[in-house]
Amino acid sequence: MYSQPLSKLKIGILGGGQLGWMMILEGKKYPFEFYVLGDKEKDPACKIADKCFSEEEYKQMIDSSDIITYEFEHVNENALEYAEEKEKLLPRINNVELKRERYKEKEFLRDNSFPVPRFYVAEDGDEALKILKEEFNNEGVIKTSKGGYDGKGQYFIHNDVDKYQFIKDMKCKFVVEEFVNYDFEASIIAVRSKNEFKYYTPSYNYNEKGILVYNYGPYYNDKMIEIADNLTRRLDYVGTIGIEFFVRKNQVLINEIAPRVHNTGHYTLDAASISQFEEHIRAISGLPLGSISVSKFFGMVNILGTDNLPKELLNYGKVYWYGKNEVRKRRKMGHVNIIGNDLEDVKQKIDNVIKLIYPQGYSL
Amino acid sequence: MYSQPLSKLKIGILGGGQLGWMMILEGKKYPFEFYVLGDKEKDPACKIADKCFSEEEYKQMIDSSDIITYEFEHVNENALEYAEEKEKLLPRINNVELKRERYKEKEFLRDNSFPVPRFYVAEDGDEALKILKEEFNNEGVIKTSKGGYDGKGQYFIHNDVDKYQFIKDMKCKFVVEEFVNYDFEASIIAVRSKNEFKYYTPSYNYNEKGILVYNYGPYYNDKMIEIADNLTRRLDYVGTIGIEFFVRKNQVLINEIAPRVHNTGHYTLDAASISQFEEHIRAISGLPLGSISVSKFFGMVNILGTDNLPKELLNYGKVYWYGKNEVRKRRKMGHVNIIGNDLEDVKQKIDNVIKLIYPQGYSL
Repeated sequence: MYSQPLSKLKIGILGGGQLGWMMILEGKKYPFEFYVLGDKEKDPACKIADKCFSEEEYKQMIDSSDIITYEFEHVNENALEYAEEKEKLLPRINNVELKRERYKEKEFLRDNSFPVPRFYVAEDGDEALKILKEEFNNEGVIKTSKGGYDGKGQYFIHNDVDKYQFIKDMKCKFVVEEFVNYDFEASIIAVRSKNEFKYYTPSYNYNEKGILVYNYGPYYNDKMIEIADNLTRRLDYVGTIGIEFFVRKNQVLINEIAPRVHNTGHYTLDAASISQFEEHIRAISGLPLGSISVSKFFGMVNILGTDNLPKELLNYGKVYWYGKNEVRKRRKMGHVNIIGNDLEDVKQKIDNVIKLIYPQGYSL
Repeated sequence: MYSQPLSKLKIGILGGGQLGWMMILEGKKYPFEFYVLGDKEKDPACKIADKCFSEEEYKQMIDSSDIITYEFEHVNENALEYAEEKEKLLPRINNVELKRERYKEKEFLRDNSFPVPRFYVAEDGDEALKILKEEFNNEGVIKTSKGGYDGKGQYFIHNDVDKYQFIKDMKCKFVVEEFVNYDFEASIIAVRSKNEFKYYTPSYNYNEKGILVYNYGPYYNDKMIEIADNLTRRLDYVGTIGIEFFVRKNQVLINEIAPRVHNTGHYTLDAASISQFEEHIRAISGLPLGSISVSKFFGMVNILGTDNLPKELLNYGKVYWYGKNEVRKRRKMGHVNIIGNDLEDVKQKIDNVIKLIYPQGYSL
């Protein structure tokens, strides 16, 4: 019987942040080399990569890699396009393109019958405010179409539209969306390779000012699994994907998709039989996916904008410290993964961890 | 409340092999830097260390590290002694000294009432053969006292003492030991820090010609836990330890101790809530140990002397490939970690993995 060998691939990662860092930590067990396009001096992923290439060296990096992936969608566009052209990019460029402008992602989802909040596209700020008034009675969300993540460029407007008149003069495209009065936010992490589809148990997520503070689970929701399956099939997706939802009663609405490993899937490093990072590496390398089981109650707390790390954190979980060059407000510096006996135990531990990290409370 | 911070320690590892490599992979999540004393060009651990120092630079490495540990007991003795002198070595040097000569380890265990096979110490080969005849009726094991691991320097003599007359002329010290007709071999991995003792569920081990081929479990044995507790206390031990046993009916005899992370504990990377490597790093850094639970049926197969890696291996488990510079007979090149639904499932997967790695059978 002939067996195809696990060959010595060179995998190039666009982006040098913590997601790339965890891809490499989890991928290092394979006979692969990891190259990173990033800042040699500052980027976490560069510190453990076999080789780090500067932004200018993207062609050289792509030419010397067998496969190119990205740890984040807002990376060097020339590199993405060059890698796609060389047929090395996974997930393919159509997925990133959806993320370049919010309205493209929204329209794609709506046009393919995936559930999304009601929205309209505005050509400029003036139109955005008009739509907000006419369609949503001045209660809704205005989001710049370009460059938004971690809550950037999002305006949540309730009875205070007067405060947002500055939007009128903004000359960029916007998405204007209904304000979803959700019960909670949730997400699913899924993986598709050429022949397989796998998913992790969804989680409850707690975001504040557009940034994830903590999540926990398991949260069971068959509808999310079905959406992940259909969506990745429709996108001809290869790799790990994160899909964020609003949940209101029994209804789910897609808030956003992330065509990459995702912050709400960090728990898979400790609570699942195989991590989202390792599955991503397997999927893009054409390897069989691992069997996923999430057998534990889990939680994750982001360490945001601080390097306060009391030893006692280790009484509640595992600390992942990304080793970023400097602390900045809202910056993701690390996270704590928690395991518990049940959901209550996990929530108690999350509380304790938050108190240890942010003794004065967190300000985002 | 004042909390001691998880500070940015510099941890130096003596030895650059796979055990150091896995210590770093598992320790990288902490805000620590890892230095390795090893061969920059060849050693697995050097490839992911923050800095690699050559054997000659041991003083420089130790001076610039906060803590020194070792991944293997047969490393640079000057470095071990210098690190001990600087009060940086953990586990302390008494533990390695026991391993420099077999007879010291055996005598220590016997003198402290730990169960070991009956043995005698011989000053040279002539005396060893005499003891074998007089005390064991020419059936037993003769082991050189120095430099033995992975089955090196061990002679198993049954009815063929004539073949071993060459031992007579050997001028080194020997241990002569009863031949233990064990039912099976087993081991326990345990961890002690200054205030805590933790252990992993023991495993059944299968060695051939003195080298571990595979192991699996869980195997429950309270006596082993008690021995691990007493022994690490007696040794004033800090870190992860591996203790290998012969099991015959209800009796356990210690075959060997390994004052370090151990090959039979590789399963902890995937089947336990925290790995032996991470616990080792926590113990030597004065951090709280993690809570250990082994909730799964597990197995591990060593990849020995081959770089044959069929992709299908991933259908049965996770492949850890150490990235050594060349394949040599009996050399540990990597391993496969297996999870199963029960012991039978694990054993079936071990069989399948062995067939994939060694299609012509293994020769050790």
